[in-house]
Amino acid sequence: MPRYFVDESNIKNLIIDGDNYHHLAVVNRCKIGEEVELFSNDITYKVEITNINKDTINFKIIDQFYYDTEFNFKVTLLQSYPKGDKLEEIIKHSTELGVYEIIPTITERTIVKIDESKKQNKITRLNLIAKEAAKQSRRNYIPKINDIVKLKDIDFSKYNVLIFAYEKLSTNSDKTLLELINSIKENDNVIIAIGPEGGWSEEEAKYLISKGFIPTSLGKRILRTETAGLYTLSAIGAIKE
Amino acid sequence: MPRYFVDESNIKNLIIDGDNYHHLAVVNRCKIGEEVELFSNDITYKVEITNINKDTINFKIIDQFYYDTEFNFKVTLLQSYPKGDKLEEIIKHSTELGVYEIIPTITERTIVKIDESKKQNKITRLNLIAKEAAKQSRRNYIPKINDIVKLKDIDFSKYNVLIFAYEKLSTNSDKTLLELINSIKENDNVIIAIGPEGGWSEEEAKYLISKGFIPTSLGKRILRTETAGLYTLSAIGAIKE
Repeated sequence: MPRYFVDESNIKNLIIDGDNYHHLAVVNRCKIGEEVELFSNDITYKVEITNINKDTINFKIIDQFYYDTEFNFKVTLLQSYPKGDKLEEIIKHSTELGVYEIIPTITERTIVKIDESKKQNKITRLNLIAKEAAKQSRRNYIPKINDIVKLKDIDFSKYNVLIFAYEKLSTNSDKTLLELINSIKENDNVIIAIGPEGGWSEEEAKYLISKGFIPTSLGKRILRTETAGLYTLSAIGAIKE
Repeated sequence: MPRYFVDESNIKNLIIDGDNYHHLAVVNRCKIGEEVELFSNDITYKVEITNINKDTINFKIIDQFYYDTEFNFKVTLLQSYPKGDKLEEIIKHSTELGVYEIIPTITERTIVKIDESKKQNKITRLNLIAKEAAKQSRRNYIPKINDIVKLKDIDFSKYNVLIFAYEKLSTNSDKTLLELINSIKENDNVIIAIGPEGGWSEEEAKYLISKGFIPTSLGKRILRTETAGLYTLSAIGAIKE
């Protein structure tokens, strides 16, 4: 059944309008009597279309229910900006896997040159991809794709569990990913930093550690940058849900 | 550093030939004095190229070491054949994540029609993708991509931990994925069955249960077929490694 994120006012006034109207009435050519799912404020409404007007659709509510689709903590993915269309794939997968926010980040070894004039369009498009993926995976929350920023410009003060994937492990203070995930508590604000194709520079690793990040290994094999975040989010899901 | 899977005889005779010769000498235009990594029988050899001939390359061994990149059990992914080029992506990700074998499977709701005459070429190409991904992630083992088979034609007798992702859970005997993963022991033969875009039919679910499969949920959100296997493999990695 098609599912749409709507505003609280849509539910209150029993009206579908704007983009959702366009998608339902024009693109999908919905019919009177058809059932769709509307989603607002953590509640899913099963509704029946009662009328299709020029700019709005009227409906009646048949049923409503609450799905719990979220972690009881927040996980932000700091993703070094990857090559090609990998970021799109990362957004799709991460949204399915419960990410709260993604920060596309320019690091020392980021290869991609990002055109300043196209940045805003890109972010708008990436947020649309997150919205579509949230719809598909029936999530109650649409992850936010942050603006593209430099590593040193990110404020880490709000996070209380900070993890970064680092293959050059040496110190005894490193924890395993399993230990780190087990330490996550309700309402925690978790951030996971994934380096670029060429890895973190030594200076960046030192910087992250100085900001409270704990280095950890992501298993015995070398993961591509587009797999590393999924690995971590999947592990969090399986261990904490 | 480039890395090549070679036969034991190549190491014994200090000679690179065949496909590896072509890739190194013709495609990559390697030079005398260059260092490459050769991999054979669980051992990685760091070698220096000493001569480039018409069909062979001579080398000397500089160093050799053993990386442990494998689980101490085997995980087979029974993947319902997905649409488009998703299977390629699944193979790349799963290889990084430590899969032992992938069985592309035709299920009741498989949408793709597979042309009998092209099957063998397809499988050959998919095995090459697994080989490349194994090289990239520095694995000691190249996962095998099985022939495309029907669900009912698979012999499950060799597996002792059988898990399938099933969203319509009801019985009290279901276990969480975490419990199932924790139950995996050394040398176990694990199989994970992932349904197609439309999910398993009720009849298939009953069939899998009759074969000893345990249904489990993959978290609170709905995962696409191409994400479900990665989720499970990542969870196994994080919990067992």
